[in-house]
Amino acid sequence: MCQLLGMNSRLPASLTLSFTGFSQRGGCTDHHSDGWGIAFFEADGQTPGRAARHFVDKESASTSPIAQMLRSYPIKSHNVVAHVRKATVGAVTLENCHPFVRELWGRYWFFAHNGDLKDFNPPLHGAFKPVGSTDSELAFCWLMQELNKSHATVPSVEELSHTLAELAPKIARHGTFNFLLSNGQALWAHASTKLHYVQRQYPFNSVHLKDEDVSMDLSDFNGPEDRLVIVVTEPLTTNEDWVAMQPGELRAFCDGALLV
Amino acid sequence: MCQLLGMNSRLPASLTLSFTGFSQRGGCTDHHSDGWGIAFFEADGQTPGRAARHFVDKESASTSPIAQMLRSYPIKSHNVVAHVRKATVGAVTLENCHPFVRELWGRYWFFAHNGDLKDFNPPLHGAFKPVGSTDSELAFCWLMQELNKSHATVPSVEELSHTLAELAPKIARHGTFNFLLSNGQALWAHASTKLHYVQRQYPFNSVHLKDEDVSMDLSDFNGPEDRLVIVVTEPLTTNEDWVAMQPGELRAFCDGALLV
Repeated sequence: MCQLLGMNSRLPASLTLSFTGFSQRGGCTDHHSDGWGIAFFEADGQTPGRAARHFVDKESASTSPIAQMLRSYPIKSHNVVAHVRKATVGAVTLENCHPFVRELWGRYWFFAHNGDLKDFNPPLHGAFKPVGSTDSELAFCWLMQELNKSHATVPSVEELSHTLAELAPKIARHGTFNFLLSNGQALWAHASTKLHYVQRQYPFNSVHLKDEDVSMDLSDFNGPEDRLVIVVTEPLTTNEDWVAMQPGELRAFCDGALLV
Repeated sequence: MCQLLGMNSRLPASLTLSFTGFSQRGGCTDHHSDGWGIAFFEADGQTPGRAARHFVDKESASTSPIAQMLRSYPIKSHNVVAHVRKATVGAVTLENCHPFVRELWGRYWFFAHNGDLKDFNPPLHGAFKPVGSTDSELAFCWLMQELNKSHATVPSVEELSHTLAELAPKIARHGTFNFLLSNGQALWAHASTKLHYVQRQYPFNSVHLKDEDVSMDLSDFNGPEDRLVIVVTEPLTTNEDWVAMQPGELRAFCDGALLV
């Protein structure tokens, strides 16, 4: 199995702290050593939140030079989707590393999946075809195709959430379908078996990292205006109130808060 | 203006040497300090040449931590498309950094452009829409749309080259349209004003880098089976036989050699 990590933040925020603990799960504190990937929607630009950066590597996240660079070079972002992979279906190759990216309606979309799908062979008649061989990328291509078919014009985050809530169960009936999805406007999370989230806002407290046995005072890094949500397979800290998502639950996070 | 750099290699090759000189043009030896980007098609995987990695940064290529990481961490690749940008049209934001990426027929495509297009407003009725605000990304989306429309099934490299040779002049009439394009199978280069290429093969010689005043013996890094083509705006070395492409010329490079 693999682990998911997502962030949605009202103000541009660095994920360095959470990524440090999370990337240790790629080979050190856990058995996830089959590649990893992370996508950041950057805060600035003419069209805030549209610009994205995407890093994938087949090397373990705990030893990868790219992960090392990211741990020391904070990228400020409103939305992040990350994944540490343990191969189950599909060979361990770069084209099978999550998150996957596609463009729809002039925005990039990133998708990462935890789980396995059985007998999932949807018709792909649209413009989205898998590059690799995972059931995950296939599910993403089908979601993009169906979103595109469901809306004549560019939908709002609320409309997108409504459509995704209709589409997700059609895939989830084929197996385990925990996923994170972002188009830079919002972060969507769907739980099938295991996904947790926590909201952090003023006043920020000290948190104790589960994977590194260290504590960090979040008030050192955040001001009164900061507000963000972290979504992750397994909680990253031991002293915060993580919410366990229920099977079949789809949530949209926007501006660092639960929207839907 | 900006500079383009591409590589097509028969065997997986590292671009470290050429990228070192090229990335110096982002702020040190040249005035290109408005962002840069590079895409690598990786050699291994179930579907060789399909997996891709894509790095973009708004920071100058000569000082960017990501460029620094790439100079010290060689990525072996069959096809590379790189770009150092000097903004002319479109704000200097990450979503405007080349190369741009889209998926078509289950392959990623990367495109980088040098030049300006005037009064280029093609109808985009297909599945490819620009995320940023450059004429370059618009041209790429139109190319992808027209390639998709022109072929009922997945075309060969020769068929793609034929279609691209028909499409490129329709854009080039709007201005300067030097571009590099790769889908992992081949590297296409179109010259409107300035683009050079060189083929390197056995026996490899010592080359003198233009931007760094150093010489490197290519036989230290290459064996008898290696063969590759480098395509670049301005020659990177002073003692090789660079071929200056002619206005309107479209070339396809495959397995380290000129195909079309």
